[in-house]
Order: sequence, then C-alpha cells, then structure tokens
Amino acid sequence: MWENIAIPKLSGERYSVTYRISGSEDEARARAIDITLEQTVEFPYELLPRGPIRDEVVGRIESFSRMENSRSEKDGAETTYEAKISFAMETAAGEITQLLNVVFGNISLKDGLRVERIDLCESLYNIFPGPRFGVSGLRGLLGIENRPILGTALKPMGLSSRDLSDLAYRFALGGIDIIKDDHGLTDQKFAPFEERVSLCADAVRKANKESGHKSIYTANVTAPFDELMRRARFAKDAGAGALMIAPGLTGFSAMKTLADDSGLGLPVFSHPAFLGASLNGASALSYFFALGQLQRLSGADAVIYPNYGGRFSISKEQCLEIARGAREPMGRIQSIFPFPGGGMSLEAVSEMHEMYGNDLIYLIGGGLFRRGDDLVENCKYFRSLIDKY
Amino acid sequence: MWENIAIPKLSGERYSVTYRISGSEDEARARAIDITLEQTVEFPYELLPRGPIRDEVVGRIESFSRMENSRSEKDGAETTYEAKISFAMETAAGEITQLLNVVFGNISLKDGLRVERIDLCESLYNIFPGPRFGVSGLRGLLGIENRPILGTALKPMGLSSRDLSDLAYRFALGGIDIIKDDHGLTDQKFAPFEERVSLCADAVRKANKESGHKSIYTANVTAPFDELMRRARFAKDAGAGALMIAPGLTGFSAMKTLADDSGLGLPVFSHPAFLGASLNGASALSYFFALGQLQRLSGADAVIYPNYGGRFSISKEQCLEIARGAREPMGRIQSIFPFPGGGMSLEAVSEMHEMYGNDLIYLIGGGLFRRGDDLVENCKYFRSLIDKY
Repeated sequence: MWENIAIPKLSGERYSVTYRISGSEDEARARAIDITLEQTVEFPYELLPRGPIRDEVVGRIESFSRMENSRSEKDGAETTYEAKISFAMETAAGEITQLLNVVFGNISLKDGLRVERIDLCESLYNIFPGPRFGVSGLRGLLGIENRPILGTALKPMGLSSRDLSDLAYRFALGGIDIIKDDHGLTDQKFAPFEERVSLCADAVRKANKESGHKSIYTANVTAPFDELMRRARFAKDAGAGALMIAPGLTGFSAMKTLADDSGLGLPVFSHPAFLGASLNGASALSYFFALGQLQRLSGADAVIYPNYGGRFSISKEQCLEIARGAREPMGRIQSIFPFPGGGMSLEAVSEMHEMYGNDLIYLIGGGLFRRGDDLVENCKYFRSLIDKY
Repeated sequence: MWENIAIPKLSGERYSVTYRISGSEDEARARAIDITLEQTVEFPYELLPRGPIRDEVVGRIESFSRMENSRSEKDGAETTYEAKISFAMETAAGEITQLLNVVFGNISLKDGLRVERIDLCESLYNIFPGPRFGVSGLRGLLGIENRPILGTALKPMGLSSRDLSDLAYRFALGGIDIIKDDHGLTDQKFAPFEERVSLCADAVRKANKESGHKSIYTANVTAPFDELMRRARFAKDAGAGALMIAPGLTGFSAMKTLADDSGLGLPVFSHPAFLGASLNGASALSYFFALGQLQRLSGADAVIYPNYGGRFSISKEQCLEIARGAREPMGRIQSIFPFPGGGMSLEAVSEMHEMYGNDLIYLIGGGLFRRGDDLVENCKYFRSLIDKY
C-alpha cells in the first residue's frame, strides 16, 4: 500500500498534553495509546507506513502514573492515571484551532478523559505569544500600580443605550476601573451595538474628565463571525478602552485574532459563557487548562469566571485552579488577571483578597445596586474597601 | 433608581428552550426561575424596573413537569423535571452567537441542567434559514436519487499532498461519493492546505472523467478565524465540491457564514471535534440539540459523528437521537444527513441501514484499508453493499 510514499521530515520539537484517564491500569494504558493515534493519524497502527509517521507523527507517551488520590482497585472504585503525551510540533500547523484539535478534538467524544495541562515547545511559544498586556501591561494602561482592580457590568438587558450610558457615567464617577457591557448585550434593538458603544464610551470619558480617575469602558464584541472584527474596530474608534469576548461562543481563535491585531491594540477580557459544559462530566477540560492556560494562549488579558459562593456551581479549589492557570509560569506567556464575579457581594471583598491577593479584578454587578439608591456612593464604598490593599 | 428610563418595545414573539433540570420539585422550580433571569437580565429580580423588562425580557416558564422516567424522591434518588422556557425574540439579536448565549451561556456553569431542544418563532426562522442543500439538495447535487451515500476520509496525517491525492483518486475510481480530508489535516507542512486541496480536487476530477461517476472532494476549512474564509474561497476555486468544518473549534457562527455565503454555494459538512465535552456531565447539551438541531440552525448539510459500536463512547439511543435531531420537522429548516463514522467497518453496513434507512452518509475510513491492498476494489465492494438499497 505505502511503497512509494514521500517520507515526512520533522523538526523533532514536541509539545505535550497531560491527561487524566479513568479505569484500571490496563484500560488506562490502552486509552493512552488510543489517544496517541486518535489525535493524530486517526488510523489503525498496524496499517500505518513504517518510518516517521509511526515514530513521530503518532503521539508518544512520555510518562504514565497512577494518581495519588486515586482509590484502590480492591475497593471496586475507579482508579485514575495521569499520562503525559507528546505530539510533534508540526501536528498543530501553527494554528490555535488545530492545536485544540490535537489536544481534545476527537477524544472529547470518549468518556473518562480530562485534559489537565499543556506544555508548549519553543517554536509554538513564538506562534502563540499570549496576551498583549497581561497583568503588568494592564496595570500600566490603567495607571494602577499595586492595588486590586474594580470591575462592574452594564445591565439589565432591556435598558436603552442612553440609560446604560448613564449607568456607565455613574460607575465611572464612583471610581470603578473597568466598566464592561454585560455579556448578553450584543446588538439588541433596545441598545444597538454602535449606539450603545458610542454613548457608553462618551459617558466614561466625560466622567473621567470630571473625576480625574481613569476608568475604561469595555465593549462586548461577541458577535457573528462575519461581524466581529467590524464591531471591534468600531469600539476602538469610539473610544472603548478594552474589548470583551466569549470564546465559548465565537471560538478561541476569534479572541486570539482580537488580541494579535495591532490596529486594535486593546486589552481583551474573556467571558466564560457556554464553556461550562466542557468543564465537568465524563470527558472534560480542567479549570486550570480551560480558564487558565487556554485563555492565555488565546490572548486574554483577564479571564472572567464565577467565583465560588455566588450563583454558580464552582468550588473554592476550582477557583484557585483557575488563578493558578492564569498566573503560573508558562514559557514567555505573561500572567493574566483572574476576574471573578457572578453574584458577588461587597461583603465578599475581604475574603476574596485573602484568597487571591492583589492581582485580581473584582467583578461586582447586581451587588452594587443592593446597597442603596445612590450608585455613585455605592461605587465609592466599593473603592474604599479596595483602597486598603 | 429607574425613574426616567426608556421603556423597551417588544414584538411579543418568543422562542423557547426545553431544559431538563435535576433536583427535588422545589429545587427544580427555583432553578427554572433562575434560568429566566440568568440567561437574560442577569440581575436581581426585585431590583429590576417594573414593566416590559420584568414582564417580557426576563424568560418565562411555559411549562414545568416531572419527567416520566424520573426516579421517585422516596428512593432517595434524584428526580428530574422538564421546563420549557420562552424568551423574547429580541433577546437573540438575530445572532447565532447570542442565541446560543441565551440558550446556555451562563447556565452552562451551573450543574444539573441539560438543553433538550429549541423551538424557534417565525421571525427567527427567517434569520436562521438553515442549510443551503439539506437532504434533497445534496442528493440533487450528487445525482443520487435514493440510495445511501458513501463517504471516506483522506489520511493518515503525515502523508504528502501528492500521496493523499493519490488516495483520493483511488477512492473516486472505486465509486466513493464524498471524499473528505481527515479533520486533522489543516495546513501542516507535510500537506499544506493549498497544495493538498488543488491536487486532491484535480485527482477526483480526473477519476470522475475516467469512471463517469460523480465523486466530490471535500476540503477541511477548519482554520484560524482570520484565515478560514480565504481557505474556503480557495477550495471553491480549486474545484472542491464541499467544505468541512469543526464548529466546536471555530464556533458555530463560522459554519453558518460558510453556509450562507452565496459566493461559495457549497455543501457544508460539520465535524464534531471538541464538541464531545459538552454532551455529557453535570451541565450538558442533548445529542438531539447539539448534533441535530444546532447543526441545522448553523447551516450544516450533514453532521458527522461517531457511530455506536466503534471507537467512541456513544450509545445506539444517542445515535438515533442525533438522527432525529437531523431529520425531525423544524419549521422551514430542511432535514440534513446523519454522517456517522468513527471506526466503522464494512460489516456494519447492513445494521446501519436497518437503523438509519437510506438518507444516510456512511463514513468509512481505516476500515476500507483492512480488506486488502487494492483500494479501488475495496471501495467497489463497499459500493456493492450499498447498491442493494
């Protein structure tokens, strides 16, 4: 079958993915071998041509070990193993879409596997440089040296652009650093994109002039494929200080395109909408990978997620996993801000500070409205809680 | 707070989403109410302005019932409920990204919820017309009146463009109707996109001329955001007869853009890579919705997925659910082809026919290589199995 085929040449550079695999030791080993084929050649091993396709294009198990907290087989409970599998740099084709395909494309359809982490190789770090700003760049842009950063969202859906911009004005006067569209505000007729973004950017500029503080308005550019870049450029021109996108809805590559576009040159905040279904269950991505490493690879400067104790199903440990994924050294890719929210209250600030430290963006939405009718005062109170740090 | 705000005007048209909710009856009811807020205003109900935002923008529970197979609470086991929740047409902003956000954006981060199905309203059917070809259009294009359709994939990764095109030539000579790139072939240096697509399209054209049969070559255009449309146009110009894309990697909106582009005017086949993690677990999309309805909404003419009994974790019932989602009446949106594959063998053909009937595309890859060295003969044998129907 394969007598006269061309022999592929490979650089020898490899990146690796660590998987958690459920099952007995024999099952887990068989599944690790399956990953090496399924994610690359997708072909019966014994029918593959001999040479570099078998030896280098097929994934390679670099390590395989039983996980420490795994229950014993004698108990009848399922054990878990950790396999680190390396792939030839060339399999990713220099594309974030194809990199994700190798990491978890087909095997997302197989139970009992979880992507724990990725470790890139030198030349992939060149292709995936990560966020434009990161923690230090965003601090520089906002002029905030060391304290935690404050964020809030414009809502509820149904308000007019004018009324949303009035909220934005009051948030900015109250000293909120990042004022973002709620992620459900896109281009509804109540508050069409261009009108809303122009008015909100203007309102924040006006408040900044009055207060001397530097707030930035963040436009949600989550949008259909053929509309997204146009909205991002409009937002930039209108004076938005940052962009928000939900890569679970648009694909991670759209976020990377925003981050890489030097004509835009704006910070990018990632929203987790629609990603939740990938984080739990029989086949899954770890919080560390999905909301930490992958966000950085795809250019986010901050990752929004629900904090524990709010309205969402997430534990303190999972939140800390996200923060580790956002901050842990990762080649030359900068660390980024955790941006937890989701039903947070003003009362949660000190506990969150203890947990996350100063390199954090607090996202408080509805909670700001609960304290009383004077929104500017509520924001100033929120600021006073942060200014101690 | 809300004294002088503008009052939004709504059309009254609503679409609805059916959710399966775990928990006791009280819990499930509370969670249904939570969905109505979380997916729209994302704001404490008691703080919302009175009027249309409360009454129409917030989702509305249309029905709530215990699911028949739900175990009884007396057993201590979890019960499940089904809630049909309607949303104002305006919340979707006419965008597939925002429609998905309303359906499952934030609540994907909450456990114990599954999206079962969607039912659109009249004006959303105008915005989401579905596939360009569908079952009847694709049959017309291929000139296949009634029999099942045959598909295979070009692989393994690592082969040169020339060697892949040689496979394509033999598959076409053997009478395979749809010859597609393996979904892992994007733009690797072994077989760069433009070279591969040109050679494979040429090879299939040459074989068609010799055999009189009409095979089409399908180019995989799963690619980074800023590259995808360029590749699609290149493929069209090079003579590809269809396009394949993995919306789990690119976002569903990219697929819809391909399908809607009249300059392309090619059938679109959807690959399930990376979608698997959303199909199981504590928060999930049903197979019916994710691989059936959503694919049609996003313009796919056929949906590729692993058949049961192959290498993947999927049951016969789940496969039938996908087929129902692909075929069941859905407003004016056409039915599409199930395109099951994933470790299928030639021996599986008759069982699959019994299960799915004639409106099916069989995807057999590695299985075609197992029967012997003469690939053309193997394909002809595959055709002979189908030609009976």
